[in-house]
Amino acid sequence: MMVRGAPLIGVTGAYGAALATAESFSQGWPLEQLEAKWEALARARPTAVNLAWAVAQVRSAALAVPRDRWSAVAFEAARRIAHQDVEACRQIGQHGVEILRQLHAKHPERPLNVLTHCNAGWLACVEWGTATSPLYQAHDAGLPLHVWVDETRPRNQGARLTAWELSQHGVPNTVIVDNAGGLLMQRGEVDVCIVGSDRVAANGDVVNKVGTYLKALAARDSGVPFFVALPTSTLDPQVPNGRSIVIEERDDDEVTAIEGWADGAVRRVRLLPEGARVCNPGFDVTPARLVDGLITERGVAVASSQAIAALLRP
Amino acid sequence: MMVRGAPLIGVTGAYGAALATAESFSQGWPLEQLEAKWEALARARPTAVNLAWAVAQVRSAALAVPRDRWSAVAFEAARRIAHQDVEACRQIGQHGVEILRQLHAKHPERPLNVLTHCNAGWLACVEWGTATSPLYQAHDAGLPLHVWVDETRPRNQGARLTAWELSQHGVPNTVIVDNAGGLLMQRGEVDVCIVGSDRVAANGDVVNKVGTYLKALAARDSGVPFFVALPTSTLDPQVPNGRSIVIEERDDDEVTAIEGWADGAVRRVRLLPEGARVCNPGFDVTPARLVDGLITERGVAVASSQAIAALLRP
Repeated sequence: MMVRGAPLIGVTGAYGAALATAESFSQGWPLEQLEAKWEALARARPTAVNLAWAVAQVRSAALAVPRDRWSAVAFEAARRIAHQDVEACRQIGQHGVEILRQLHAKHPERPLNVLTHCNAGWLACVEWGTATSPLYQAHDAGLPLHVWVDETRPRNQGARLTAWELSQHGVPNTVIVDNAGGLLMQRGEVDVCIVGSDRVAANGDVVNKVGTYLKALAARDSGVPFFVALPTSTLDPQVPNGRSIVIEERDDDEVTAIEGWADGAVRRVRLLPEGARVCNPGFDVTPARLVDGLITERGVAVASSQAIAALLRP
Repeated sequence: MMVRGAPLIGVTGAYGAALATAESFSQGWPLEQLEAKWEALARARPTAVNLAWAVAQVRSAALAVPRDRWSAVAFEAARRIAHQDVEACRQIGQHGVEILRQLHAKHPERPLNVLTHCNAGWLACVEWGTATSPLYQAHDAGLPLHVWVDETRPRNQGARLTAWELSQHGVPNTVIVDNAGGLLMQRGEVDVCIVGSDRVAANGDVVNKVGTYLKALAARDSGVPFFVALPTSTLDPQVPNGRSIVIEERDDDEVTAIEGWADGAVRRVRLLPEGARVCNPGFDVTPARLVDGLITERGVAVASSQAIAALLRP
C-alpha cells in the first residue's frame, strides 16, 4: 500500500519491471530469475488489472529484442505507459465533459451536483485522474459544479485526497460520510455519480473501492445516472464477470484505528477495543446492470460484453 | 446529544416532563409556563417520535387530575413508560426470535449471520434493546449467531456501542465499515438484516440512522430479508410518509473529527483540514417497499398502512 490508484499502480509496476530488467542485465541473472521478478511484481496486488497488464507490456517489449537492448526497451515501454496514462485521462475528461454539459442543461439555474467515491483523481494516476478528469475539465470550461465527496472509510481517500485535490483546483466540494449519499440522492441533491474502477470484467461488472455498489444501488433507485471513468487498460476481457475477481482483504488496522491531526502532528487513535473482530474487504462489485456508462479514452460505452469487445478491438 | 436512542430519548423525555411538572408545582408557575416547558422538551429533537409521544403521555396524565396530584401522576406516567419500554423490548425479542429460528433452519449447519446498523441495543433503551432483543434472546436460547456490526459513521455507535454490548453478552460479532455490507450480502454472508427505527410513518416508511437505506437496498438486491424492530410508540400515524419527516442535521464536528484511544486516554483527532465543507444529516428514509417486516411488541407486521393501522387499533 505504498502506491494506490489502479492507473498509478500500473505505471509504477511498469517502471518496477523495467528496473528488474536492468538489474537482470547488470547482475547476469538467468531469464528464469527475471521472469520470477516480473511475475512477483504482476501479482503484488490482486484486484487492479492495470498492474499485470503493465508488467506484461514491459515483458513482451523486452523479449522481442536482443538481450543487450532489453533494459533500454523496458524503460521505453514504461515511459510509454506513463504517457499513455496521461493522454487517456485527458481524453476521458473530454468525453465526460459532454455528459456533464448535457446534465447541467436540464437545470442550468444551479450548479451540477456530482457524487464521487474514493479517489480516482490525479493522485491515483499521473495527471488529470479518471473520475475527476471530467470534473476538472468542466470546471475549467466554466460549467458550475459542486462535488459531494464520500469520505470513503476505512482509509478516507475521499476526505484526505479527493477533497484536497478538488479544493486545490478550486472546485467547490463537500465531504459526507459514506452513509449519507443515499439520502442526498433521495432528496434530488445529486445529479450524477462518477467513480473510477480497479477492474472491469468482460460483461461490464465494475470492481471499485468497497461501498461503490451501495451508491450505484441508491443512484438507480433515485434515477441518478451512474458512470464509471477508466482507461481501457482497466478492462479485463479475461474475467467473464465480477464474481470471478479476487477481492483484496486488507489489514484490520485500517478499521480498528485511524490517523488524524492533533496538536500539530499526525496521530493515530484506536477506534475499537483490543481483541475486537474486524473484516476489511477493499473492493466490491457493481453489477453492469447498475452502470449507465463507461467513460473511456475511446469514448463512452454501455457496460455490456458487446460494447466492451468493440472498445478493445484494435 | 447527551441521550441517544429513540426509546431512551422517550423515557428520558417522560422523566424530564415529570420533573418540569414537579417544579411547576413547587415554583407556582402558571399553566402556560409548564406547557411551554413540555413543548420545549417535546421539540428538543426533531426526528425520533418517541420523545413527543412520551411528553404527551405525561402531560395528559397530569392534566386529567387536580393540580395537587400533577406531580405524583406525572412521575407515575414516566415510570409506566419506562416499564412499558422494558416489556415492549422483551416482547419484540420473543417475536424476533421466531424469525431467526426459521432462517437458521435453512442452514442449520452454520451460525446465522445477522447484519445491524448503528445501535438499537439496551444502551438505546432501558433493557434488551429493539434490534438486539431478538439477538440476545436467540443467543440465550442456544441458536448459533454471528453479527456483522456496521461501524456507523459519523458517531460510530456500531463500533463503540453495539459491538461492546454484544461482546458483553457473549454474542460473536465482527465490526465492518459501513461500505462493506453490500459486498457481504452479494457473497451470501448475511442471512438477515435487523435495525431499529426513530420513526415509522403511517405508510411504513422507516426513518433510522443515516445509511440504513443503503443496506436495505443491498438486502433487497441480494434477496436478504430486512426487518425493523421497534416498539409501537415509534409508529407515527400522523405523518403520511417518510418524505414528511424532518431529518436532523448534526454538527460538522462529527465528520471533521473523531475520538479514539491513544496513550491510555480518549483523544480527538481532526480528519479534515480547517475550512473543509461538510454536510451531516443524521437519518435517512428506508421506503416501506424495502422492509420485509416490522417486529413490534404486538407481533410482526408488514410495512403497510393497513397493517400499521391494525397494530395501533386499541
